[in-house]
Amino acid sequence: MSRETRDAIFGGEALARIARLARIDTEVLVTDFVAPDPVLGRMLAETEVLVTGWGCPRIDRAALSRMPRLRAVVHSAGSVKHHITDACWERGVQVSTAAAANALPVAEYTVAAILFANKRVLDGAYAYRQSRQRVNLLERFPSVGNYRRTVGLVGASRIGRRVVELLRPFDVRVLVHDPYLSEREARELGVEQAGLDALVSRSDVVSLHAPELPATRRMFDAARLSLMPDGATLINTARGSLVDTEALTKEVRTGRLHAVLDHTEPEVLPADSPLFDLPNVLLTPHLAGSIGGELHRLADATADELGRYAQGLTFRHRVDPQALQHSA
Amino acid sequence: MSRETRDAIFGGEALARIARLARIDTEVLVTDFVAPDPVLGRMLAETEVLVTGWGCPRIDRAALSRMPRLRAVVHSAGSVKHHITDACWERGVQVSTAAAANALPVAEYTVAAILFANKRVLDGAYAYRQSRQRVNLLERFPSVGNYRRTVGLVGASRIGRRVVELLRPFDVRVLVHDPYLSEREARELGVEQAGLDALVSRSDVVSLHAPELPATRRMFDAARLSLMPDGATLINTARGSLVDTEALTKEVRTGRLHAVLDHTEPEVLPADSPLFDLPNVLLTPHLAGSIGGELHRLADATADELGRYAQGLTFRHRVDPQALQHSA
Repeated sequence: MSRETRDAIFGGEALARIARLARIDTEVLVTDFVAPDPVLGRMLAETEVLVTGWGCPRIDRAALSRMPRLRAVVHSAGSVKHHITDACWERGVQVSTAAAANALPVAEYTVAAILFANKRVLDGAYAYRQSRQRVNLLERFPSVGNYRRTVGLVGASRIGRRVVELLRPFDVRVLVHDPYLSEREARELGVEQAGLDALVSRSDVVSLHAPELPATRRMFDAARLSLMPDGATLINTARGSLVDTEALTKEVRTGRLHAVLDHTEPEVLPADSPLFDLPNVLLTPHLAGSIGGELHRLADATADELGRYAQGLTFRHRVDPQALQHSA
Repeated sequence: MSRETRDAIFGGEALARIARLARIDTEVLVTDFVAPDPVLGRMLAETEVLVTGWGCPRIDRAALSRMPRLRAVVHSAGSVKHHITDACWERGVQVSTAAAANALPVAEYTVAAILFANKRVLDGAYAYRQSRQRVNLLERFPSVGNYRRTVGLVGASRIGRRVVELLRPFDVRVLVHDPYLSEREARELGVEQAGLDALVSRSDVVSLHAPELPATRRMFDAARLSLMPDGATLINTARGSLVDTEALTKEVRTGRLHAVLDHTEPEVLPADSPLFDLPNVLLTPHLAGSIGGELHRLADATADELGRYAQGLTFRHRVDPQALQHSA
């Protein structure tokens, strides 16, 4: 991983814990498998477990040839798609991910965003700032609030499922659309399944938790956005490519829809994008995932998995190569 | 209650439900006990249960003399202090409140505000809006997030306790200060008790859930605010009088503290108050409580209590006159 990533994720106490579990030189950081310096090359040759993070180069056949003793990769971030290759699966390398830990802050951001959106909290703040007078809530916000509202989740991913759990104490109905969710799983989650268009047209808030795949690209285009009821909110903490930015901009510009966007396409919007300034849009700079101290949770999760490995247990968060085809 | 309140709260299906439980003329609304028109006067004389709401005049000796058959008051809002008098208690009138239902939206707003505050979500949005460029999160927000942060709750009121429950799924430590909370209750709630100053100096977020009493007035003055760590957030959804607005304004103006304020003193701030415009302050116009559709929850709770009364059961949310001395 990059040095910046290492310092941010492993800046807490987890590195000392890992040093008690494994033979490790905590000063050493590999950022290049192809042409490592000779000392690193010798260390790679002995490496049994690789701890990876954001910015890890691809572990392809060439990289693997330098690590003949490699048995496991413990990834301290979410998706392993960027660095784990078919060569790893073919070699039988076990892979673990901190995706479950990384899902928590995104789910937490989402739940807070849902509660604020249903209640029009930021709109209330804006109205008050503009008028500097008592805001007539009955007149201005006649049908808002978190009582008997409908939340539609697109994707029963780790994050989507965590959002379902976190929404349990609230008086909201939860709809889920996910082509890979079985009826039994939906029942166990306590959610109602719905087709995508039905979900979109019935929900006061739609939150996206689907992976970036050819099938999900621009899933929310002008036609689908037009199905959202007046005053509904779209939350995107997943991937910018799921939404047609131009079509969404049109819908929020008229004030018909609201949006909470942590991901957009392009990721940094043009400086003149109306999404920066509209009071019915909360635009955040890709911060829903692990940031600040939340990065230490990834290190703690990594240390937990290394602890299991050291005890001869299987990983709790082992990556299944089959499931990668339809997940992030 | 006022007509506006009646229409907002009982605009859903609860009134029809009440009409099935009781002999009621759903068109009739009493707004004055002292000089009601003759028809209303005759109805009051027969009234056994009074359904009250915001704007209800005081039920004093004179009012009670018009309602010789009154046995119970079911209040469709929170505090009963504005209309229930000692004369009611002396007459043995049973009083029920929808305060528990009214506590939920405040607790929900608070939890969302805590999650956003710990993660600096609105600060991130502001930084992005200002720069229109990628925000370096590692550099700008090195120690934020909802992992192992400390939340201090001042007041184990209904709302405070609900916030404790709602915070359970999150990785935060919860401190509570309440002079009326026993050690056993704190253990049952799963919270750590702390003296007020200790709580304030240890918490990343302090949220106020104390009632307005002589003892709580300006509880957060300059001295107490100065105990808050740099970068901490004060949330006030309780009463404006708990906080010295001028002292808080100084602290947020320097950027040392953050604040989320749904109540202030005065309630509508002067138009030139910096609290309207500071990016580290979220100022909302007294909307954390029940608004919009959340008002129907109050009507549903009222119908539930009338249902219990009709069945000869005691109220689930009966008001204890003794407890009123140290609660809202």
